[in-house]
Amino acid sequence: MPADTPGEESVAPPRETVLFEVPPIRGWSLALHGGAGGRIQELEAEERHRFEAGLSRAYRAGAAVLDVGGTALDAVCATVEQLEDDPLFNAGRGAALTTDGEVELDAAVMDGSTGLAGAVAASRHARNPVFLARAVMERSAHLFLVHPPEELVARWGLATADQEYFITEARQAQLARILADGLVAPRHGTVGAVARDTHGTVAAATSTGGMANQEDGRVGDTPVIGAGTYARDGQAAISCTGEGEAFIRGVFSYDVVARMRYAGSGLADAVTATIDETLTSRRASGGLVAVDAEGRIVVAHNSPTMFAAFEDASGLVLRT
Amino acid sequence: MPADTPGEESVAPPRETVLFEVPPIRGWSLALHGGAGGRIQELEAEERHRFEAGLSRAYRAGAAVLDVGGTALDAVCATVEQLEDDPLFNAGRGAALTTDGEVELDAAVMDGSTGLAGAVAASRHARNPVFLARAVMERSAHLFLVHPPEELVARWGLATADQEYFITEARQAQLARILADGLVAPRHGTVGAVARDTHGTVAAATSTGGMANQEDGRVGDTPVIGAGTYARDGQAAISCTGEGEAFIRGVFSYDVVARMRYAGSGLADAVTATIDETLTSRRASGGLVAVDAEGRIVVAHNSPTMFAAFEDASGLVLRT
Repeated sequence: MPADTPGEESVAPPRETVLFEVPPIRGWSLALHGGAGGRIQELEAEERHRFEAGLSRAYRAGAAVLDVGGTALDAVCATVEQLEDDPLFNAGRGAALTTDGEVELDAAVMDGSTGLAGAVAASRHARNPVFLARAVMERSAHLFLVHPPEELVARWGLATADQEYFITEARQAQLARILADGLVAPRHGTVGAVARDTHGTVAAATSTGGMANQEDGRVGDTPVIGAGTYARDGQAAISCTGEGEAFIRGVFSYDVVARMRYAGSGLADAVTATIDETLTSRRASGGLVAVDAEGRIVVAHNSPTMFAAFEDASGLVLRT
Repeated sequence: MPADTPGEESVAPPRETVLFEVPPIRGWSLALHGGAGGRIQELEAEERHRFEAGLSRAYRAGAAVLDVGGTALDAVCATVEQLEDDPLFNAGRGAALTTDGEVELDAAVMDGSTGLAGAVAASRHARNPVFLARAVMERSAHLFLVHPPEELVARWGLATADQEYFITEARQAQLARILADGLVAPRHGTVGAVARDTHGTVAAATSTGGMANQEDGRVGDTPVIGAGTYARDGQAAISCTGEGEAFIRGVFSYDVVARMRYAGSGLADAVTATIDETLTSRRASGGLVAVDAEGRIVVAHNSPTMFAAFEDASGLVLRT
């Protein structure tokens, strides 16, 4: 069933960077991604519709928050919640399985208005890891928790779920194929969102199941603030997907912001430079969604594909 | 026994930044720290001598590597190994205990010549977490592992140790005091080193036991590349200690390097600006050791104290 995991069938070498830059078209801005990867076959029309429906649903959840004056942080959490709940995407339910056939989830949020952040790695009990990351930010003295215990998730009033909830037949089949055929483990597939709200604040959220067949305990860039997730009012919010190790080494999302802060680059130029230096020159691939302080959206990737949703003057753009 | 954990008795509010800048005095450069903190009493002369002896021993271990043309990476690992083995410092043996009275260790290394890095969090089995972080960098497809299993440590040929090895009576007494008196948990105490070798390459290594009485699974800035640990040839290597959450939010060590890369700042000016913005303005405290591409050393902290060792024209400087 390769079509159940499009964009995840192989480690995709980087290609020329694809970049969309969209000026703000209303008082708020929102963009999301559903994972970068390499496609080994075209999606069938029906499968494409399912992915498009998932991306659209997630976009609308965030837009509904922003439309009534809600915060960027609430919007990115509402968007990522939908993608976590959708078994098609590699986050929450339907996440990629570890070698042991289990699900371990990573997530992070960052609020550009306060500069506060929360992150979890190897989460097994929270139904929505993005809400657990937010709870770490808002309810804990800490910022980053690994293996957060079920008792903590429950104490914070968050919904829990068993492994059976997260594990889908499609992912079990994917892992079996990888183990049987000795395939290279897919390195891609993560979801995330960025937003600028009507108050001018930005926020980012990212959530992932990691790599299929990954070694127990491997953490990618998603929960690493400054790598896969970063937000700072006056500059930008960024959420990444791709080969996590390259994003960590390059301190990817903060490098984009640093080029804006210290070299005066615009968001699109900063994104292009960081992709070239941090990913392409190292033969790594991935992508990101970003929004700057004025609400300008940049969606870019050097991987063959990246699922994404954003709006331009013509309406909602769904990339599959 | 408060004197067994000097610099760790309280969350210390920041003070004016103390900064030492030392030009290179030979073909290589080395600096280490043994933790930042607030001192509630002066060290007794005998205790001071023990700390000084530990700092000096660690410095000499790294210097011996560099003196014979060894790499910066080997030097910082040799330095941190000594500090991990010394029960006086909050890393390896003698690390701070979690609420459950156990030891969970974090460490990271980064090699400025390759841009590669390795990190571990919640390590319980490797006798020297710094060597495990290096093995993740050199022997694994991943960069960052949490709860690395004992089997992996052994498979990589690294020495293992039981919890009994790591847990000291002094730390058990410290935890008991904190639990009995409801004291605020100390937030400080981490070790690290930076070096520039005779080939012009820089490297950084950091290792910590985290906060005493920390919640299970809390990860600070030490293993977060770009926060507590970063190295890049042509720019600088940096190792941090202090209130980890503030260092993560500020993407501290990469912010210093970004000011050098994109704003043209020198190392000392970049360090001063990053401390002011990321720590002092947020009432957080800590410090760092850093070395730039020419071998210039910067040792700085806004905490009341920071244990450190480095050389200036007059000889070895030991700060306790």
